[in-house]
Amino acid sequence: MNNAPSPRTGTREKIIEAAASLIPEVGWGGVTSRRVAERAGVNTGVIHYHVGSIGELRRIAAVGRIQTFFLDRIGDALTQEDPSAAVELMLRGLCSSDSRDPELLLLYESLVAANRDDQLRAEIAASLSRLRQWLHDWFAERGVARPLPAAVTITAALDGFLLQRMLDPDLDPTPLIEGLAALVKHESA
Amino acid sequence: MNNAPSPRTGTREKIIEAAASLIPEVGWGGVTSRRVAERAGVNTGVIHYHVGSIGELRRIAAVGRIQTFFLDRIGDALTQEDPSAAVELMLRGLCSSDSRDPELLLLYESLVAANRDDQLRAEIAASLSRLRQWLHDWFAERGVARPLPAAVTITAALDGFLLQRMLDPDLDPTPLIEGLAALVKHESA
Repeated sequence: MNNAPSPRTGTREKIIEAAASLIPEVGWGGVTSRRVAERAGVNTGVIHYHVGSIGELRRIAAVGRIQTFFLDRIGDALTQEDPSAAVELMLRGLCSSDSRDPELLLLYESLVAANRDDQLRAEIAASLSRLRQWLHDWFAERGVARPLPAAVTITAALDGFLLQRMLDPDLDPTPLIEGLAALVKHESA
Repeated sequence: MNNAPSPRTGTREKIIEAAASLIPEVGWGGVTSRRVAERAGVNTGVIHYHVGSIGELRRIAAVGRIQTFFLDRIGDALTQEDPSAAVELMLRGLCSSDSRDPELLLLYESLVAANRDDQLRAEIAASLSRLRQWLHDWFAERGVARPLPAAVTITAALDGFLLQRMLDPDLDPTPLIEGLAALVKHESA
């Protein structure tokens, strides 16, 4: 129950961090043990000791970073009590970063890699499923009339809009915010 | 004004078709002149004569196929007069194909390639922009109260949902249809 990171944990985190930063720079397939070892300042043998294969390392790095990207921004937004205000804050938070944010490049590199890696696909799918469930429960608790359509539509639209904004950095989130906020308005509004 | 395809047009189409079918199979970077020539049954010199560089060929093939994928299905749906019915038909049409449809794999290969190819990025962005405008005008003509939020939200949600369904083939489009149809309901409904 000692919370201080052990030297082992520190090295493992450094390796994962190095891999996550390399994916958007050199592409999924370009993340090799040699490059990760160089960036993390360790030797390649240490990588295999801490995280197994390079394929496993790419998966751990990518899924961890994707979850953090979404959960941090969405968690911040859900401190609002009003669902429409939360949806607006979520969209503004996700669109605040540069449209060519390395975290978004990492997300799309991972999605393409997932076509050829069933375990990666299952892990990203599970992460999206938890996000939908989280939004559903949060909307249901706050009396949103149709929490499931709202959660599914918002999750899909977030992903699609981030992708479209990477193609077109000037894309304005305002109409999307208006569209999605309408889904969580109370029936009486 | 002779509508019969000339032998030149036929060869160019065969080359583009071969490139489009190769992208999802071997990945963006794996589409080489040699592979395209083999599949199209031409020699590599013919490719350069008809479409210029291999980079240009990949772009023409990808953008053409992406447009056809969306425009065919959306065009079919917009023969409905009722906006909610059209949105439902659009979603069912786009989700009817196998979730690992080669056309979807091609779409995501292209999106990742677009991060490293400004011309490809601009062409896909322009194509999405035309789709938003088309939906906007169609909704506006049919008296949808907020045609811009509806068009932007539906375009984003379509892209995001197709992507999520590739990760999770069992994802049910019904809640998304309910969410998006609500955006195009008439105020009085």
